[in-house]
Amino acid sequence: MTEIIVIGHKNPDTDSIVSAIAYARLKVELGEESYIAGRCGEPNEETKYVLKLANLSEPKLVEDVSGKKVVLVDHNELSQACTGIENAEILEIVDHHKLNFSYPVPIYVLTEPLGSTATIITKLYLREKVEIGKELALALLGAILSDTVVLRSSTTTETDRRLAEKLAELAEIEDLERFGVEVKKRKANIANKTATDVLLEDFKEFEFPKGKVGIAQVELVDFEEVDKRKKELIMAMERLKKEKGLALVALMATNIIKGDTRLLCVGELGRVEEAFGKRVEKNEVYLENVMSRKKDVVPKLQKVFS
Amino acid sequence: MTEIIVIGHKNPDTDSIVSAIAYARLKVELGEESYIAGRCGEPNEETKYVLKLANLSEPKLVEDVSGKKVVLVDHNELSQACTGIENAEILEIVDHHKLNFSYPVPIYVLTEPLGSTATIITKLYLREKVEIGKELALALLGAILSDTVVLRSSTTTETDRRLAEKLAELAEIEDLERFGVEVKKRKANIANKTATDVLLEDFKEFEFPKGKVGIAQVELVDFEEVDKRKKELIMAMERLKKEKGLALVALMATNIIKGDTRLLCVGELGRVEEAFGKRVEKNEVYLENVMSRKKDVVPKLQKVFS
Repeated sequence: MTEIIVIGHKNPDTDSIVSAIAYARLKVELGEESYIAGRCGEPNEETKYVLKLANLSEPKLVEDVSGKKVVLVDHNELSQACTGIENAEILEIVDHHKLNFSYPVPIYVLTEPLGSTATIITKLYLREKVEIGKELALALLGAILSDTVVLRSSTTTETDRRLAEKLAELAEIEDLERFGVEVKKRKANIANKTATDVLLEDFKEFEFPKGKVGIAQVELVDFEEVDKRKKELIMAMERLKKEKGLALVALMATNIIKGDTRLLCVGELGRVEEAFGKRVEKNEVYLENVMSRKKDVVPKLQKVFS
Repeated sequence: MTEIIVIGHKNPDTDSIVSAIAYARLKVELGEESYIAGRCGEPNEETKYVLKLANLSEPKLVEDVSGKKVVLVDHNELSQACTGIENAEILEIVDHHKLNFSYPVPIYVLTEPLGSTATIITKLYLREKVEIGKELALALLGAILSDTVVLRSSTTTETDRRLAEKLAELAEIEDLERFGVEVKKRKANIANKTATDVLLEDFKEFEFPKGKVGIAQVELVDFEEVDKRKKELIMAMERLKKEKGLALVALMATNIIKGDTRLLCVGELGRVEEAFGKRVEKNEVYLENVMSRKKDVVPKLQKVFS
């Protein structure tokens, strides 16, 4: 029987890895034995923590999916998929992102506007009445809490909350909030990273009519490290600005517990002041109740750069 | 409460019309009262026959969906959707065709490689344990039998067969085969139609990298009329090609009893020869065991036009 690989996106996060494991297992439980979980990259510290707690092995590393049969979870845009995807046979997609997909034959595709792919897969387990088990429940919960920033992100729905509680019960986790913060903390830590790594780990460039803007984001549980290393971060931002010819480089240091952001910036600071209606002091603006680059920051900068 | 319109593709067929009715009703039964069924065109004779037998009204005619909230059933490519779709808010898609869709926000999308959208919607009724009722069962069965050519097309799956039998029971139809042929016969006749009507009744355009291709299909119970009117059909195809600026116009004349197709074509005939590995003679290729535009014809033409 040909092996079918269930696999998430490049630079895998916890949702991608856990969704691959859980969906492959669901297929096997439903009698389709040839499904295995894959990954196309190294799991991050957060994912490793969740897998270890859940007593689950990492999915198989798949460097290239050329010629293979695959099920895509947690992504549908081929630009985010494994190497070789153009030469793979895609059998199914299960995802929670916006759809941007075209394929020459009809296949099973399920996308839902929920906080994580793990939420969708939990729904499928419940619908098919397949037992989730304590360990997988813990991993699925970890994935939901990771992708929804402990049910705080604006993408979080009632379904995410309800199923997270259900999974917490199954996983015998009493304090969902505390578990979520424990999970997020694994990545929300810049102490062991160089300033450049902090900037580039989640860096996006935007081409606006009046200039190119780079916006990095880092999630933290407190601002201690930002205070300690601000000078070093600003210097790295100045270098990046020069290297990439950007009009502005901004770093969102977002406290995922409190839900606020310190926006560090170098370049055309006047535009930042215009965008947020606040003075930039020492290369920084404080933004209360701001957590989303996409929703809270990009539109405002786009406006002043257009 | 804003009205949400569940609507199928332009030139609606029985699957598009019945799926819109059935999905809107499912939503209402599940407590979401604002859903209504719409249609963006006149039902054909077959659809009218099915609706009358099932004692169902035609969905509301919607000329333009600009500014409206819509759920798309039985299609996902915007080129096949109602006028105004670029200015509509798309909430969901339920479909059995290949996916070619991009949207700026995540939405609920369900596509399955089944013989009809009505099959998918029947599955949803059974899953949600919503009563289908004798009349809707008859309409859903009519849609499945219509789209799968009485369970003969290559797109027909085990699920289509199983659910068709289930619906036949609910609809108290003893001879599914005979009912199917009765349904199909309503349309499988070109004697009273102009050549242009024959072409446009089930005409789909596809934008491939190397040119736009229009593929019409007409279902027949024998080829008598095609022989009689071939010249007239070819002339109408030439006109259509010019009017719409197409690289190729093809007409699948499909014998639904024998399960074969005569593919009439005008335009870039070399690509047709390449696609099917056969000589085009007198603007025609004979295709044995070919009944499905989607499965048997579109992928082959897409390949040579890419």
